[in-house]
Amino acid sequence: MEEDQKLLFAVNGERYELYSVDPSITLLEFLRSETQYKGVKLGCGEGGCGACVVLLSKYDPINDQIEEFTVSSCLTLLCSIHGCSITTTEGLGNSKDGFHPIHQRFSGFHASQCGFCTPGFCMSLFSALVNAEKTQRPNPPAGFSKLKVSEGEKAISGNLCRCTGYRPIVDVCKSFASDVDMEDLGLNSFWRKGEKADINIDKFPFYSPNGVCTFPDFLINELKSPKQCFSNLYMKNSDNVRISKLGLTFNSNSVSIRSRERHWYSPITIEELQKLFKYKKTEEENRIKLIVGNTGAGIYKELDHYDTYIDISHIPELSVIRRDSSGIEIGAAVTISKSIKALRGEKGLVFTKIADHMSQVASEFVRNTASLGGNLIMAQRNPFPSDIATILLAAGSSVNIHTGSEIVMLTLEQFLERPPCNSKTLLLSIRIPSWDRLRNFSSEFNGSIDNNPINGTILLFETYRAAPRPLGNAVSYLNAGILAWVSTNRKSEDSVLESLQLAFGAYGTEHAIRARSVEEFLAGKPITVAVLLEAITMLRAIIIPKEGTLSPAYRSSLAVGFFFDFLRPFVKGLTDTEKHLQISDVVASAKTPNGGLNRSINGVADMFPENGNCYVQHDNLARLGPILSAKQVVEVSTEYYPVGEPIKKAGAELQASGEAVFVDDIPSPKDCLHGAFICSTRPLARVKGIEFKTSLASQRIVTLISAKDIPRGGENIGSQSIFGTEPLFADDLAQFAGQPLGFVIAETQRYANMVANLATVDYDTENLEPPILTVEEAVERSSFFEVPSFLSPKHVGDLSEGMAEADHKILSAEIKLGSQYYFYMETQTAMAIPDEDNCMVVYSSTQCPASAQRVIAKCLGIPDHNVRVITRRVGGGFGGKALRSLPKIVTTLFCIKPCSKAY
Amino acid sequence: MEEDQKLLFAVNGERYELYSVDPSITLLEFLRSETQYKGVKLGCGEGGCGACVVLLSKYDPINDQIEEFTVSSCLTLLCSIHGCSITTTEGLGNSKDGFHPIHQRFSGFHASQCGFCTPGFCMSLFSALVNAEKTQRPNPPAGFSKLKVSEGEKAISGNLCRCTGYRPIVDVCKSFASDVDMEDLGLNSFWRKGEKADINIDKFPFYSPNGVCTFPDFLINELKSPKQCFSNLYMKNSDNVRISKLGLTFNSNSVSIRSRERHWYSPITIEELQKLFKYKKTEEENRIKLIVGNTGAGIYKELDHYDTYIDISHIPELSVIRRDSSGIEIGAAVTISKSIKALRGEKGLVFTKIADHMSQVASEFVRNTASLGGNLIMAQRNPFPSDIATILLAAGSSVNIHTGSEIVMLTLEQFLERPPCNSKTLLLSIRIPSWDRLRNFSSEFNGSIDNNPINGTILLFETYRAAPRPLGNAVSYLNAGILAWVSTNRKSEDSVLESLQLAFGAYGTEHAIRARSVEEFLAGKPITVAVLLEAITMLRAIIIPKEGTLSPAYRSSLAVGFFFDFLRPFVKGLTDTEKHLQISDVVASAKTPNGGLNRSINGVADMFPENGNCYVQHDNLARLGPILSAKQVVEVSTEYYPVGEPIKKAGAELQASGEAVFVDDIPSPKDCLHGAFICSTRPLARVKGIEFKTSLASQRIVTLISAKDIPRGGENIGSQSIFGTEPLFADDLAQFAGQPLGFVIAETQRYANMVANLATVDYDTENLEPPILTVEEAVERSSFFEVPSFLSPKHVGDLSEGMAEADHKILSAEIKLGSQYYFYMETQTAMAIPDEDNCMVVYSSTQCPASAQRVIAKCLGIPDHNVRVITRRVGGGFGGKALRSLPKIVTTLFCIKPCSKAY
Repeated sequence: MEEDQKLLFAVNGERYELYSVDPSITLLEFLRSETQYKGVKLGCGEGGCGACVVLLSKYDPINDQIEEFTVSSCLTLLCSIHGCSITTTEGLGNSKDGFHPIHQRFSGFHASQCGFCTPGFCMSLFSALVNAEKTQRPNPPAGFSKLKVSEGEKAISGNLCRCTGYRPIVDVCKSFASDVDMEDLGLNSFWRKGEKADINIDKFPFYSPNGVCTFPDFLINELKSPKQCFSNLYMKNSDNVRISKLGLTFNSNSVSIRSRERHWYSPITIEELQKLFKYKKTEEENRIKLIVGNTGAGIYKELDHYDTYIDISHIPELSVIRRDSSGIEIGAAVTISKSIKALRGEKGLVFTKIADHMSQVASEFVRNTASLGGNLIMAQRNPFPSDIATILLAAGSSVNIHTGSEIVMLTLEQFLERPPCNSKTLLLSIRIPSWDRLRNFSSEFNGSIDNNPINGTILLFETYRAAPRPLGNAVSYLNAGILAWVSTNRKSEDSVLESLQLAFGAYGTEHAIRARSVEEFLAGKPITVAVLLEAITMLRAIIIPKEGTLSPAYRSSLAVGFFFDFLRPFVKGLTDTEKHLQISDVVASAKTPNGGLNRSINGVADMFPENGNCYVQHDNLARLGPILSAKQVVEVSTEYYPVGEPIKKAGAELQASGEAVFVDDIPSPKDCLHGAFICSTRPLARVKGIEFKTSLASQRIVTLISAKDIPRGGENIGSQSIFGTEPLFADDLAQFAGQPLGFVIAETQRYANMVANLATVDYDTENLEPPILTVEEAVERSSFFEVPSFLSPKHVGDLSEGMAEADHKILSAEIKLGSQYYFYMETQTAMAIPDEDNCMVVYSSTQCPASAQRVIAKCLGIPDHNVRVITRRVGGGFGGKALRSLPKIVTTLFCIKPCSKAY
Repeated sequence: MEEDQKLLFAVNGERYELYSVDPSITLLEFLRSETQYKGVKLGCGEGGCGACVVLLSKYDPINDQIEEFTVSSCLTLLCSIHGCSITTTEGLGNSKDGFHPIHQRFSGFHASQCGFCTPGFCMSLFSALVNAEKTQRPNPPAGFSKLKVSEGEKAISGNLCRCTGYRPIVDVCKSFASDVDMEDLGLNSFWRKGEKADINIDKFPFYSPNGVCTFPDFLINELKSPKQCFSNLYMKNSDNVRISKLGLTFNSNSVSIRSRERHWYSPITIEELQKLFKYKKTEEENRIKLIVGNTGAGIYKELDHYDTYIDISHIPELSVIRRDSSGIEIGAAVTISKSIKALRGEKGLVFTKIADHMSQVASEFVRNTASLGGNLIMAQRNPFPSDIATILLAAGSSVNIHTGSEIVMLTLEQFLERPPCNSKTLLLSIRIPSWDRLRNFSSEFNGSIDNNPINGTILLFETYRAAPRPLGNAVSYLNAGILAWVSTNRKSEDSVLESLQLAFGAYGTEHAIRARSVEEFLAGKPITVAVLLEAITMLRAIIIPKEGTLSPAYRSSLAVGFFFDFLRPFVKGLTDTEKHLQISDVVASAKTPNGGLNRSINGVADMFPENGNCYVQHDNLARLGPILSAKQVVEVSTEYYPVGEPIKKAGAELQASGEAVFVDDIPSPKDCLHGAFICSTRPLARVKGIEFKTSLASQRIVTLISAKDIPRGGENIGSQSIFGTEPLFADDLAQFAGQPLGFVIAETQRYANMVANLATVDYDTENLEPPILTVEEAVERSSFFEVPSFLSPKHVGDLSEGMAEADHKILSAEIKLGSQYYFYMETQTAMAIPDEDNCMVVYSSTQCPASAQRVIAKCLGIPDHNVRVITRRVGGGFGGKALRSLPKIVTTLFCIKPCSKAY
């Protein structure tokens, strides 16, 4: 490795060869900034929305097989796709050479409205189609794929859409499935709903499974070539000045390592990894990040750069899956998707339940690269509310770790309870014991194997999670795993808990825990209402969310609910109805089956988290049933023909194929600067100063814009509406948390964000009144916004009369509306290009270009006609891009490159 | 110099610090690509048009003085402005902070039409104002400068304008002069022409001499700081991979030299320079360019990069001017402007005449940085038609050269006759003897000193040039210098040529020569008609332009004419009228004073160069008189008021201040590619292949576009008009010289140009008819373009009747029209930005946007409405940007970045 290596990959069949890469750059950043494939969208940047999903294809030269799966390009680091092929929606088809039937059906089913999420949906669906073709299923009729309707529905489960309500998108997916009921599909432009005759596949743009090459031949040939070294990659970023040789020896080749710069290594043995660790002296000097899928960056944002990125996914010990009669050992670098597949390949209730639960962790495109070990390390090191840690804890798992000097085996419980691992501690593998077989060799109990419920000891295992969304990618309010051996007392016919493993996590705890005292209390006891009540009381005392956790009572009650749900079928003294209560009934509707349980759950207020939705589940998706089956009857009047015809939206295919240009897709001018807001974190405070992290500021920050930079003749105005004007920046006094204090301008968006995130604001609240934080406080202190009279509530009808006539009366009621989050997929974006004669051309994703024009002109102190605001399309807005888009636009005006700078 | 040095300078008061610079980059390229100062325009790229003129200010910390002068930024290399301050027209004022009175008066005098040349004019005028203020002249009345009208006229003599005819521009310049006759100024928007009362300075935007800081304090302070090392600069370009230390020692510091890359050195001693020469082994491996002002690049284009640039202007031996009684010795790196100043400081006819002549070499902004030595080296090494070499040859100059091993003194004649110098031969200085004083110590003749014409020996010295333009920056058809001692025979009263030095150059010769045989023939002879005739005959035999020189007969006749002009006053036997003939009468009007001379000049045909104008001069500009004095009477009707009012053009100030955006000023998108045509050099030939210079092609060329790349559905169409269509590219057969064969696409315009210029085209003319090159041949071979009938000449009136009535009759006449060169200042430019849905947005400097749209759509095979052509302003066109702009625009469409490339 004397020579710097190249990073080689393909995008949509084109070859890319890079010799110098900043290891912190993501696949998304590369695609959007260095290629024309801007269909890859940046939505949440956390792997949570799916707007950035691409298909990653890997070739295995030994088996001559191609493996294909979706990934979040916003999390995937570019260096980790060495030797891979990427397919984006542009790779499926385009307006010149013809759209892909996926694109065409998204258009025809009206499944693309704002269009920002569409490319990601297309790729999730495409991946499902590609993988369905690889199954041994019989060939479908021409025009159909091997995909099943049920798979089609799940294919897009991680992708978010805020416009369509998903039905049209699911219709697109279903339309490819050979088991689809064509008449069940919704309104579309391919046929008129209600037409009886001849609704068949011919109505659709034709699908053929071999239309897209996802792995180009040249790359296969290069990978087969012995000259290519496709592991042990070493990459560095390019803004270096000096090279010094340090003589580190890897596989009898020496590596050049640059000091004080960022590097990427892909070692292929643990020894190499250990050498790298040794070379990196202290964590302060050389912050090391171990990488598999980098999906953890979606949770713990990379606020500053690491110095060294080490991709451990090429070390065989970390990727192997070993099975024996005592259990399964999964390498720490094995992805969650592969872990699921491995567990499904095993017999046994525990493995199956774990696999089912894992399928609800994050989204498929995250699970495809996220490693099992990474999940557990985050749970160990950070207070990451891992589902996997909790359920593996319940299953009595253990781990192997490499501490640098030795390999240690620890129970998962021991591992989680250790002080947080440093970056050099290596989690090697996770072992899940085979409980069913374990008992086979045990003589402690007379229980039968394989959960024989009759007259024996049965193994029970269940996992639980309650989260704001039912299908993946939402962190649990609380999760749980319970493993129990239950026998039946032949005399009393009581169920006896022979042994129990109770694990809870995510409820506001440092890490998942075993409820040891409850376990011990219950061991050997019959499951009676009294025992259960006692256990519940004990459990409530254990499951105490730490200070500051949202909805603490709800979380505690969930633990109790899950625990009750688990033992419910065995409790003596419950009615049959009570026995068949769903956990959702218990927790969500607060029906209290009996007095005992009633005491254990504190009433309605605890039953819901304070904000947002709650979906409780403790089984796989199948239990939710065919959630997306519904009848859609659309009455189309022909009176004003063609008004009412299901005509496809102009440009919908372009949105699907990634060709539609959103503001951030407009090629920015050379030397364009980028900015990010620094917002107040205090509701009412004087801002005494803003400081930047020195290491970043010296190199990367161009300037900070704040209220004092408003040009002469301009006003500090950020928005203007019927509610009055708002300042663009806080003056010396921040009025509310979230108020913009300044705008950091840097050479790249990444640096602007980084500098803004790491800025330290010096606040001072001395002699200030306490801030008004609630409506009640505002009323108390008579602090009101002036509401224009035409918006004042109007009296309609006679309230008392209506109430008197009503069947049900409201005796007393209080309604509180929480805050609103617009949640548009395309974030606020604006690009300003100064033009001659003091003019400004502003491209913005705003719902109110006219207001933007007025405010910009006022802020800059120039005539309205000097400002041109261009909005071509908006990637979702829902009101959030009306007034709230203005400050972003206005500040963008300051991003005009100052020239007195070092190059 | 262990550390890489920084290049430090200021632009319009802003500080620039660069650590890595490609030494071949020009100041213009830097300003236009790395700053917002796009008022600096690229016109000819040869220092010939002045559109790129900026003010360069140098600070002398020893004398605490600032020296200011104009330079061609298109020739000045960026590395050579270390420690300097640059002022562009944006530095004078702008629309936000207020325009400079120069900008305002350019607008008010209607002196900016297309506006492309205006910034350069502004800077030439500004430099004249700045330097006038430095004189000891009495303070002018408020609002005026110390500039004189005569200086104002000359200030802009190197700048070209193709729209105004110069009168309004000269009016602007004059308007600042305190000796201006306000009523003599032309039509303007400040007052109504013809208004009698009160035309005074108050009518103008007020001028104050201290409005602009041309050298910021911070730079003065840094230059005074001992830490700063402002000579001995070492710069390298940035695309390097490895550094290896070579231990070269300079001033007891070692320098890092990178192999196989480009470097800039500014040695401060000859020893350092010699060390550099020694290190660079062979010219093939390391092509060295010695730099002073780099103005030679305007003549000999830098087609490929040099490896090493050595700025020799900081070596004191090369910059010193030594005077003693025997003459003046000027360092080779002294600029022509400083040489002129030095010569004017000397007494003596020869020095004065040389200074006068030098003032007509190139333009002031070229002379300000062009070195005397550089001019002579080009004359020695290349067949550069130097005026300076010729006149210095006539003056009997000598040179000192450093051959690497020794310092040698040669006569200039010996120097010119040597084989061409290699790049390591160093011209140290030029010595011009003091002829007047020389004779003072001579006893050969009894002549008096100081040209006493009565009864003694007088010294005569005259220099001549004939060129296409009267004022600078046009290479001579022929130049000459003649030095003679003439005595008068007291008996016969004949003038006797005691001795003579006759030098001629630029007429199509390898270098300037002495007409030795004529000199010898005439030495000691009385100047009679017979002697003169004999001498002329001899001279004609000597002044033979080499094969391929244009207008050879004209050039030969010029030599004779100049020679005759010199001796005319002394020839016995000429009439008084003949004696007072101007040389222009002799040469330009072909009046033949007598039979003898008649024979020496071969008739009218020889009298003019075959193409273009001819201005003959042999004295300084004063002899041309007040060329720009004229009356301008503009009758303005008030009938349709305000039509006819002298309202200033909208945006004229913006044009002057550099804020007006021309196509090339539009910020290009990130990763924008650039293209350059490869045109046929053969009139009719098959194109068998195009090859690129490997060293360039491997790295820098992106692709070559030719006829086969026309997209499916499109046509090979480059323009369409009433005369029919023309192909965009030659197919296999090039139809005419200049026809585009292909379009090279590269990452920068410089590389595109370089690759295109160095491309080798393989032509084949076997079995092809000879090409038609003249109208006569076309008629003979019946090859006609079809002319639309409405353009056919129409018979108007009765020709024979008219002729019969005419006072003067045409008995026989032939008119030939030469080819036309539109000569717009802004070159053909287009920028294409692909837009969604197969659309194209094209910015172009075209006179026919509608035709462009149609042709683009046809070429690409897309609907017209998919093409948007935007033309905001055109920097001159004159018809040349009608049809002829189309191919440039159309090819630009292919500059869309392909992605399969190495980064």
